[in-house]
Amino acid sequence: MPHFLPRLGTMALALLLVVAVLPSPVQAQSTPLASWNDGTARLAIVDFVKATTDKASSNYVPPEDRIATFDQDGTLWAEQPLFTQAMFALDRVRALAPAHTEWKTEEPLKTVLSGDPGALGNLTEKDWTEIVGATHAGMSNEEFQAIAKQWLETAQHPRFKRPYTDLVYRPMLELMAYLRANGFRTYIVSGGGQEFMRVYAERVYGIPPEQIIGSSIATKYEKKDGKPVLMRLPKVFFIDDHDGKAVGINLFIGKRPYAAFGNSDGDREMLEWTGAGAGVRLKMLVLHDDASREYAYGPAAGLPDTKLGTFSAALYDEAKKSGWTVVSMKSDWKRIFPFE
Amino acid sequence: MPHFLPRLGTMALALLLVVAVLPSPVQAQSTPLASWNDGTARLAIVDFVKATTDKASSNYVPPEDRIATFDQDGTLWAEQPLFTQAMFALDRVRALAPAHTEWKTEEPLKTVLSGDPGALGNLTEKDWTEIVGATHAGMSNEEFQAIAKQWLETAQHPRFKRPYTDLVYRPMLELMAYLRANGFRTYIVSGGGQEFMRVYAERVYGIPPEQIIGSSIATKYEKKDGKPVLMRLPKVFFIDDHDGKAVGINLFIGKRPYAAFGNSDGDREMLEWTGAGAGVRLKMLVLHDDASREYAYGPAAGLPDTKLGTFSAALYDEAKKSGWTVVSMKSDWKRIFPFE
Repeated sequence: MPHFLPRLGTMALALLLVVAVLPSPVQAQSTPLASWNDGTARLAIVDFVKATTDKASSNYVPPEDRIATFDQDGTLWAEQPLFTQAMFALDRVRALAPAHTEWKTEEPLKTVLSGDPGALGNLTEKDWTEIVGATHAGMSNEEFQAIAKQWLETAQHPRFKRPYTDLVYRPMLELMAYLRANGFRTYIVSGGGQEFMRVYAERVYGIPPEQIIGSSIATKYEKKDGKPVLMRLPKVFFIDDHDGKAVGINLFIGKRPYAAFGNSDGDREMLEWTGAGAGVRLKMLVLHDDASREYAYGPAAGLPDTKLGTFSAALYDEAKKSGWTVVSMKSDWKRIFPFE
Repeated sequence: MPHFLPRLGTMALALLLVVAVLPSPVQAQSTPLASWNDGTARLAIVDFVKATTDKASSNYVPPEDRIATFDQDGTLWAEQPLFTQAMFALDRVRALAPAHTEWKTEEPLKTVLSGDPGALGNLTEKDWTEIVGATHAGMSNEEFQAIAKQWLETAQHPRFKRPYTDLVYRPMLELMAYLRANGFRTYIVSGGGQEFMRVYAERVYGIPPEQIIGSSIATKYEKKDGKPVLMRLPKVFFIDDHDGKAVGINLFIGKRPYAAFGNSDGDREMLEWTGAGAGVRLKMLVLHDDASREYAYGPAAGLPDTKLGTFSAALYDEAKKSGWTVVSMKSDWKRIFPFE
């Protein structure tokens, strides 16, 4: 028990205990969408749920077809200054470097070890594939997930000085809980690694492993000491981004979502695929326009392209033209993070 | 209304209507496992369900982890004289042949068009990949599923002279319903085509699209008349057989099954993967030893290898050694098909 407790009175102690057992944001739904300001975005959500769950509505959707898909990075949690999984990969390169002296002279690992932020920002997709191969493969899935779990428990976000899993958006947790309370199944459909996300998605978002769709590397069935394991190979199997999101949704779910949420050009095809279905479909894009509480970046916010989670002017135009809802973090969200 | 109805009395008409609205075998569960004879197989199922669903049991499994996986061909429905989907592919070759005069001289399509049963039996896996490429690709998923649906409505099994979807095993439908009634989610994990199975799996087995894991070809996101479609490419994406079944289960579900059901060497790794988990796990193999009611084939039944759904002597040995249950169709099943 912390040393200051004896100094607190009984009332204060009771209050402390009450705070400690408060439900997590995922469960807290006394007022649905409490962190959303009144406005077109909140209204679009409420209207959509009313229309699809009211049996008298011509847009009623039976529960088994109520599918909602969410991008992760920049939609459910912060993706600046780098995707969380990229931070993990960079830390893994540093941790493994002593056993790989050749990395000091081999690109892209040499650049990673240099720690030069400018050079890191210029790593290409091919570079990242190699970094993932060096850090995410050569072990069983179970071993990989244990490493990722440990990292997530200790690593801290450079700006907020908190675990990365604290950097989830409270309004989006409320939105997922609201949809689930109305019979929707919530899926993550992310360019991020499927097995990486499965480590924390249940705890952080309330989303079970079978509802996580992500990018993946190939695995190989092997026997180790007579027990079967799935070994991770340094070989891309599926990239769940851009057109891959529509492909992945069809592959894993086989049903078209009624609602889809993203924040960047990588989510365009997921929203198009969702919108091409009959009846009412909710399509939303989160706009990062709040530098003081979170981050502001990208052309759609009138800012330079960071080449990370780009929300282009062209996507903004398509959103306006197609009736997609753009959510302003600055004006639509009362609070950003659960810890606020 | 059919012309004979006016000749029927009121009672007969009422009876006719009652029969017409009887629940399908999938729902009928007044007596669970009614088509199973008393014996070790039935007992193994009942004991497993008791142990995993009784909260007082040390082997209790929470509902969210109750996963059961089923092979399809030879486990849930007949696979002789050929897999149903192979029958479909052969019919498609014949239907498309007039527009492809080159097939008359090109193997393996030349062999398919010859109709020689002996030659058809000798087609290799590479041949089948080409046949699938010629018949399952070059169209959107929706178009493919419409073609498959129409074929399933009209094609007949050569021996039983009924739609292929009638050739499902009643005891297995009862088993799936029994597991579902006890909180298990039932998945199909088959070497067959994922999109092909999704056409009928909900109607026939009560299994929704998102619980169908199968082999697949690559798809490509395209716009047709401004609408997005997923075009099927003549390129293998994933083979969900043998080691692929363990890989597929991890990829799609991310949880280890508590029960797995198969009938051939292609299911070995799925059963091994299931059995490697902690606690009670049910592993079952269906043995085709009933030539009069269905078929008898393969070394495990003491018969020659048909190279189709092979249940080898080695797998039989592994089953005995590992405590897997072998289900004799002849002695464990009172009835085989729903129409009996």
